[in-house]
Amino acid sequence: MKNLNIEFEFLKSALATDSLINSNVAIQSWLKSMNENANTRVEQIPLDKLRQWSIEPDTGSVVHDSGKFFSIEGIKVETNWSNLTQWEQPIINQPEIGYLGILVQRRNGVLHFLMQGKIEPGNVNVVQISPTLQATKSNYTQVHKGRRPLFLEYFNGEKKVRVLLDQLQSEQGARFLRKRNRNIIAELPENESIDLPENFMWVTLGQLKQLIKYDNLVNMDTRTVISGIPFGSFSTNILSFFLALNHNSQINGRLLNSALNNEVYLNSFEQIISWITGLKSRYDLKVTPKPLKSMSDWRFDGNSINHKEGKYFSVIGVNVEIGNREVVSWDQPMITPAQEGLIAFIVKEIQGVYHFLAQAKLESGNFDVIELAPTVQCLTGNYRTGFNEYSVMFIDDVLQARPENVWYSALQSEEGGRFFKEQNRNLIVEVKDDFPIEVPEKYCWMTLNQLSSFIVFNNYLNIAARSLISAICF
Amino acid sequence: MKNLNIEFEFLKSALATDSLINSNVAIQSWLKSMNENANTRVEQIPLDKLRQWSIEPDTGSVVHDSGKFFSIEGIKVETNWSNLTQWEQPIINQPEIGYLGILVQRRNGVLHFLMQGKIEPGNVNVVQISPTLQATKSNYTQVHKGRRPLFLEYFNGEKKVRVLLDQLQSEQGARFLRKRNRNIIAELPENESIDLPENFMWVTLGQLKQLIKYDNLVNMDTRTVISGIPFGSFSTNILSFFLALNHNSQINGRLLNSALNNEVYLNSFEQIISWITGLKSRYDLKVTPKPLKSMSDWRFDGNSINHKEGKYFSVIGVNVEIGNREVVSWDQPMITPAQEGLIAFIVKEIQGVYHFLAQAKLESGNFDVIELAPTVQCLTGNYRTGFNEYSVMFIDDVLQARPENVWYSALQSEEGGRFFKEQNRNLIVEVKDDFPIEVPEKYCWMTLNQLSSFIVFNNYLNIAARSLISAICF
Repeated sequence: MKNLNIEFEFLKSALATDSLINSNVAIQSWLKSMNENANTRVEQIPLDKLRQWSIEPDTGSVVHDSGKFFSIEGIKVETNWSNLTQWEQPIINQPEIGYLGILVQRRNGVLHFLMQGKIEPGNVNVVQISPTLQATKSNYTQVHKGRRPLFLEYFNGEKKVRVLLDQLQSEQGARFLRKRNRNIIAELPENESIDLPENFMWVTLGQLKQLIKYDNLVNMDTRTVISGIPFGSFSTNILSFFLALNHNSQINGRLLNSALNNEVYLNSFEQIISWITGLKSRYDLKVTPKPLKSMSDWRFDGNSINHKEGKYFSVIGVNVEIGNREVVSWDQPMITPAQEGLIAFIVKEIQGVYHFLAQAKLESGNFDVIELAPTVQCLTGNYRTGFNEYSVMFIDDVLQARPENVWYSALQSEEGGRFFKEQNRNLIVEVKDDFPIEVPEKYCWMTLNQLSSFIVFNNYLNIAARSLISAICF
Repeated sequence: MKNLNIEFEFLKSALATDSLINSNVAIQSWLKSMNENANTRVEQIPLDKLRQWSIEPDTGSVVHDSGKFFSIEGIKVETNWSNLTQWEQPIINQPEIGYLGILVQRRNGVLHFLMQGKIEPGNVNVVQISPTLQATKSNYTQVHKGRRPLFLEYFNGEKKVRVLLDQLQSEQGARFLRKRNRNIIAELPENESIDLPENFMWVTLGQLKQLIKYDNLVNMDTRTVISGIPFGSFSTNILSFFLALNHNSQINGRLLNSALNNEVYLNSFEQIISWITGLKSRYDLKVTPKPLKSMSDWRFDGNSINHKEGKYFSVIGVNVEIGNREVVSWDQPMITPAQEGLIAFIVKEIQGVYHFLAQAKLESGNFDVIELAPTVQCLTGNYRTGFNEYSVMFIDDVLQARPENVWYSALQSEEGGRFFKEQNRNLIVEVKDDFPIEVPEKYCWMTLNQLSSFIVFNNYLNIAARSLISAICF
């Protein structure tokens, strides 16, 4: 089960402060120059006027002429999870597994990640830092006759590389119907050099994690890939020895201990599995197709598809022109949220090790009833005055945390290829002795090491939890 | 992630040769007496004459009057997995998660398992050794107004017990649509005594594994629960030391090494995850409802539902009278196979550690495209003359193994509550140097320790693989 070699290389790349190929200043100026040269125009147009897309007369679904790519369909959801036992909603159906691939190479003895500056129509900032390869099956099989994606050959088996990570990970369960992507990290041999297009840049894992502290700079696809990186498991003794050796450095020893220590925890691995088994056994999720046209709460108003009370999100149409030198243009439907969202992990020191409060969350598009989510995950409309249809547990602990207890706070975007300027406030907040260890049925304290053990098995941690974990610096 | 305490208790129960509460002779005579006193009559009757069941006129589905319990429905399967890209079949739809629970207690310092002698209508032998509790949701919520299942209170949270294992495990993917059961082992405190009904018996894990060597004696539900028992992970050094201490005992040190050693393996954990990710990404499984009535290959002949060429299986109706003292009677549909099946693991010593050749297998009812199956899993009709529609890989290595290389061979029944006298030849066969290490895309060598790491995460190992693993004695 161990592969200490790879895990050690990743850890070194996360902690390295010298041996960097590109300085932080160089990365910032690379981003600045791309933003200045970028050419983007995204204009909202009526859904039924999109080139190559149409609204099916019978169902109201929004579909691409090729029958591939993705579609917006209607579903009916039935569950015994909460008081809301059924609802209808539009959802993105994209039954293809895409690639999110990062190429890495050992340079100056440290793993560097090949990142791409990429413009997506939904991005808040123009350019975001993206994986080396980001391709749907329609992309890489060239259904819509675009160019072959760069660097595809390192991920589809054409070129010989060492695969360091290769996981199936879920997308947003409230928006995507059982969608998953293949998250891959592949290592280029040290002696092999590649031509670097100007919108690509080598950075260490530590640098990437520093960039995640900024608002909307590192895209969702990058965050999900790096969230799955394993750093290894060690006993308390070995870790103490390691940390003693490094006590003068900038390393956050207590967080590293939560990530690497597999001996101290509140709940054993068996207890966590049992907690998940119990919830999956007691609660049902039944999802059936339901024509968008016949929904009473959602309607196409001649322009977009909206909830009748303006809640949740809308499906809009956009006409896009994007490019650096070469400009491409297309139309597509996108999802735009009614409000900003909030995702937050509460962290507490228990038995000397930081524990994260995981929430079991049922979402309509989940593959297997529930996934592990952050402590808080909601639309801000859910707790701000005006909507307030239900209370959000632990919201006050998160929003009223003292500044010195807020470890991380940034606005992060959802994937800009499907979501139009959708961003979530990402927070990690430490709570102290006055916060109880005893928590309700749908919550469970886990160390970072335990969360990481679950990530590798598909459909355990949801994308919001993974987004927060990607931001953790040691 | 470690819980050495529990793992050690399980290992001790598997290896113990003294401190047994009941001798093997006592267990045999308990079984004999139950068989003598058993009263069973199972008579086949036409499907449309079953009390409390009916055939839906529109679809041809076989459903219970309550709408609960289970139903036999039709599905259409589409996949790019093999040359057979689509087919239609009846399948059992039972969208409820049942309990398979074993109560254990430390007695004479060794964990003993409380096993039940249980009669099921489909059993080949009359009485089989079953978990303490075996209950569908309809049973334990008493939909069909039967008696409350014995010992339910130890598994549903009513009584305080220590949960040692609690996993969600799949049923036969070719016969059940995404069915899963909750496999639980709960520990009764040492000082608590319970009244033992005469069809219950305390046995150690080692005794249970010895009983699995007999044909059709330990039922499928017991086998799946004990297959998930973790025995821990150790380094080569610690294991060598442990085995040196025990070198005079009857312990099979080389198998124990494959079960417990987490340092030696052909494929790393990351490589295995990557192999699974690759297959789940490349291959699709689409299952949609299709009325049984409109299938061209399957038909209701006035008595049962059969394949037009007599292949695969039939859905029959039975009238059942069963009891020891108290006799109960009911009608129900059951599945009866066209032929006996064969499941086999091929094992090979690689780098000094036994590796099992796992097969990735797509079955129509799978929850997540593929599960890990034994090296060979087929109906005997698939390779015996007369059918032979495709060749079964590795079948010759299994069937023509020399007797001294056959570690395990027994006939084992499918679950007797749904399957009528369905049995599979279970085999574990060792291959030698002339068997290649290089294997086709859908196969992967794994140590027993690696297989056990996957079992705990739901929907990784299929029920056939788990049945074979349950039989492994150290």
